[in-house]
Amino acid sequence: MAAIAPTNNYVVGVDLGGTKILAGVFTQQLKCVGKNKLSTKPERGPRTVIERISRCVKEAVEECNLTLEQIKGVGIGAPGVVDAESGRVVFAPNLGWRNIDLKNQLESLLDLPVFTENDTNLCALGVYQVELESKPRHMLGVFLGTGVGGGIIIDGKLYSGFNKTAGEVGHMVIAAGGPKCSCGNLGCFEALVGRQSLFHRIKTKVKDGEKTVLTEMLGSDLEDMRSGDLRKAIQKGDKLVQKVVEDAAEYTGIAIANLINIFSPEIVALGGGIIDALAKEMMPIIVETARDYAMPGTDKEVRIFASELGDDAGITGAAVLACRQTQ
Amino acid sequence: MAAIAPTNNYVVGVDLGGTKILAGVFTQQLKCVGKNKLSTKPERGPRTVIERISRCVKEAVEECNLTLEQIKGVGIGAPGVVDAESGRVVFAPNLGWRNIDLKNQLESLLDLPVFTENDTNLCALGVYQVELESKPRHMLGVFLGTGVGGGIIIDGKLYSGFNKTAGEVGHMVIAAGGPKCSCGNLGCFEALVGRQSLFHRIKTKVKDGEKTVLTEMLGSDLEDMRSGDLRKAIQKGDKLVQKVVEDAAEYTGIAIANLINIFSPEIVALGGGIIDALAKEMMPIIVETARDYAMPGTDKEVRIFASELGDDAGITGAAVLACRQTQ
Repeated sequence: MAAIAPTNNYVVGVDLGGTKILAGVFTQQLKCVGKNKLSTKPERGPRTVIERISRCVKEAVEECNLTLEQIKGVGIGAPGVVDAESGRVVFAPNLGWRNIDLKNQLESLLDLPVFTENDTNLCALGVYQVELESKPRHMLGVFLGTGVGGGIIIDGKLYSGFNKTAGEVGHMVIAAGGPKCSCGNLGCFEALVGRQSLFHRIKTKVKDGEKTVLTEMLGSDLEDMRSGDLRKAIQKGDKLVQKVVEDAAEYTGIAIANLINIFSPEIVALGGGIIDALAKEMMPIIVETARDYAMPGTDKEVRIFASELGDDAGITGAAVLACRQTQ
Repeated sequence: MAAIAPTNNYVVGVDLGGTKILAGVFTQQLKCVGKNKLSTKPERGPRTVIERISRCVKEAVEECNLTLEQIKGVGIGAPGVVDAESGRVVFAPNLGWRNIDLKNQLESLLDLPVFTENDTNLCALGVYQVELESKPRHMLGVFLGTGVGGGIIIDGKLYSGFNKTAGEVGHMVIAAGGPKCSCGNLGCFEALVGRQSLFHRIKTKVKDGEKTVLTEMLGSDLEDMRSGDLRKAIQKGDKLVQKVVEDAAEYTGIAIANLINIFSPEIVALGGGIIDALAKEMMPIIVETARDYAMPGTDKEVRIFASELGDDAGITGAAVLACRQTQ
């Protein structure tokens, strides 16, 4: 019997975040066969970050006992405004990037075709493709992490709009004149519920003399706080953290009601690091507030749920993109 | 030479507003051959309003020396959540309507096919069809009047979403915890820039002792104030009215930036009674604020302008609907 020829039918999906780079190796059937993680280090500048992405991809492939020759393509989601056609990252406030040629630089380093998209567009695509059995026509994904972003699926396809920038829901102003956002505006959804804004609010309250178990857990300067620490604090009965998280959940519910009023999606999927860590605490408030603020008739039979893909939504969607583009 | 046979190729477009009913008789080429106007009187209840719509249509047709037999169909836009398939008005806060069977009741009174839609969806469709020479793929219409609403055109078609309710941009919360809206929520776009909210803010300032020429123009109780009065007051150098209108323009700019960030349309058309009356005062602020708040890259080459259809956008779009549905 002839030996089975080595398949080169793999793709790599990359999720480029403000904090970490995650790369996953996938089969064409979207089965993940291996993952790798590396810190982003955006403070070292775009070139270094792109080299780190390349390293993260190469190590992921090697870890799976594969070679780059067996990879058909790489999909990558970046946190900001991405021109998917040219492969440029137009604006990514959490990386400090403006007009960075991600696709071409990464293609040179890997010698593989690279396909770029906004990170949360890909998260939405990942949820749509692997998590939903009956495919809705119109779906919305909302992802809360270091940044806050969304992905819009209309008629079963990722909707990108005229400038290919649609889905920037994190910079929807919902509290005009409110806290300053990384984008420079005031009162954006992201400035109210993004990870940094939650941490900042907790730190400010602590400076103002309020008490929290987080200082016992992490030290008085609250360095290296993570979303999971907030969950642990709430489980220990911490009222300060509970209030901050509940406020964030309420703002998220208002933002989702806005999007339901505007879009009328059938499905609203939530995800991202904050939801992964705090779904139990946040989801009931998010859903109740969203239904409360949605106009009568607009949220009928609309399903609002937390994705179970967790941290893998981004790499899964990036793999879907790479599969579709290399077929 | 044989006499030209009487054509029955007309349609009627109706714009049902919180204050007035406007009906226009149109040819299939969307030329308006006559119009009629009647006050809505929503306080008398839905049945009376629907009878008034019927009367307004009949008088418009008669005024054009036509008969109802020459009308192929009637399109009507209602201010709220409309289920275009069943023809029911699900929720229209400015009329006080919930779940009213507009289509069937009006069809009985007129003995003509009636097609319903959300009013501002039809305004957007009207602008798209008759005002734009090169048709954009993705367009957004935002209309400020008694209520505030929008219409979304994606891939050249009116986008209505899963519950057929898309485009309710007036109830996008942009100032959480802000002024109360007719829908019951706080801080909606409509609660900040709708006609009633502008009038209310002016009246409150006057009660607080601030001065305005409006009291000289309209009497101290400011009864029967109209959008045009605000323009006249600003032209007379009235600082109070100018501030209220400028604030409204800024909120409108923020709302439009939100929609550009979310949707990435190619065209944003503004209209409605407030824009018709105050375009010169508001549009520069709206455009500047929208471009300021839109994420870099999202508003590139996006055209933001005030529709010149004015009050006729609604009846024109309703006529487009009737033409399309009866072809």
